[in-house]
Amino acid sequence: MSQYQFSADERDALYKTIFQRRDVRGEFLPEPIPDEVLARLLQAAHHAPSVGFMQPWDFLLIRSTEVKRRIHQAFLRANAEAAEQFDDQRALHYQRLKLEGIVESPLNICITCDRERAGPVVLGRTTMPEMDLYSSVCAVQNLWLAARAEGIGVGWVSIIHPEALHEILQIPDRIVPIAYLCLGYTSHFHDQPELQLKRWRQRLPLSELVSFERWQGEPQEPQQQALLDRLAEPPFSVD
Amino acid sequence: MSQYQFSADERDALYKTIFQRRDVRGEFLPEPIPDEVLARLLQAAHHAPSVGFMQPWDFLLIRSTEVKRRIHQAFLRANAEAAEQFDDQRALHYQRLKLEGIVESPLNICITCDRERAGPVVLGRTTMPEMDLYSSVCAVQNLWLAARAEGIGVGWVSIIHPEALHEILQIPDRIVPIAYLCLGYTSHFHDQPELQLKRWRQRLPLSELVSFERWQGEPQEPQQQALLDRLAEPPFSVD
Repeated sequence: MSQYQFSADERDALYKTIFQRRDVRGEFLPEPIPDEVLARLLQAAHHAPSVGFMQPWDFLLIRSTEVKRRIHQAFLRANAEAAEQFDDQRALHYQRLKLEGIVESPLNICITCDRERAGPVVLGRTTMPEMDLYSSVCAVQNLWLAARAEGIGVGWVSIIHPEALHEILQIPDRIVPIAYLCLGYTSHFHDQPELQLKRWRQRLPLSELVSFERWQGEPQEPQQQALLDRLAEPPFSVD
Repeated sequence: MSQYQFSADERDALYKTIFQRRDVRGEFLPEPIPDEVLARLLQAAHHAPSVGFMQPWDFLLIRSTEVKRRIHQAFLRANAEAAEQFDDQRALHYQRLKLEGIVESPLNICITCDRERAGPVVLGRTTMPEMDLYSSVCAVQNLWLAARAEGIGVGWVSIIHPEALHEILQIPDRIVPIAYLCLGYTSHFHDQPELQLKRWRQRLPLSELVSFERWQGEPQEPQQQALLDRLAEPPFSVD
């Protein structure tokens, strides 16, 4: 088999990673992540796709308890504001959820986007200027999957004002913070997304999210209907 | 080994996928993608992380030559505008690049973001409203990696005005088109990103993109310098 081909086992390993990736908030262990492993995670992120091969990302590694505490304070402020936006019952449910592991996780990583990384005109970004932000998001997702395959949990903290990240991490105005991530080995991984386990929201039926030739285009051929029927089944197991 | 643990082979399969993923524009073969495989790609996308488990994505599958031709016309218009934005030499280089395989690829997929999918208040999106867009981008990246492991090439067409996608695909105003993707089996995959092979832009040294405790924070400890030294080496081979 050529090195460019994938065996069924290799393919299934990818699906296993994708299906078992979780947003981790509560199961972090204090053991540090070895440099050898961290280097692999960062290489995975650095090999994300980027518009015009712009590679707009930077990686800020945070291990200082003092910095983590300041970030956590900023989370608490944003989270108090957020809780007020839900109706009564939902607000009670919201307040019972654990939504971050900033201080407990041994490593935090802020992934950013430098919108001027490749000069004023970037191939592929002339009509969709947000493509650089999306490139940094792809780096996040690569790192997240790599972490899962290394047995490391990742939680994405989005309940924080970007201004707080700029201030605490001394990030210049032209740089956009994309993701603030908490990383660490975990006691275990949940077998479903935590918000599903805790009955906040359920997974949508995939067959209702697929359409043909246009927005909400219905199936016109037996093969299209067969695809929808297939998608209505639970996903294949890769264990 | 528990089903939640990953073997070294499984981990290496993920890294192989990440390192060998390419943005494909020119090597598409006409063979259709079987429904069984397409269903796996869509399940992979649907298992992306999403803010507040919002799952804001929809998947528009386009096989109609007529629709593809209209999309291609919209690409040609946007690409002519784009070429004018580069300086003389760079514009010549730009015009020699093949940047899309819309008509040749057997399947196009438009992945969108419904900003109202989970109601007006979404957990985790109250302070960073763009998190829903980022969730759909994670779905794109999951699908892209799954495709690579299936031997299927993906190209992301960003040189097109979103208004054209709205019009041709009848996408309502409140829905954001995130990615227009071309998919198909390929004659081969390049061993480097195409823009690097064609000397448009080179990969940046990862060690220059990593900092400590804050923006551009220099290493303060021997271990931090050791990490940078490690990142300055080429990534490990997973072949």
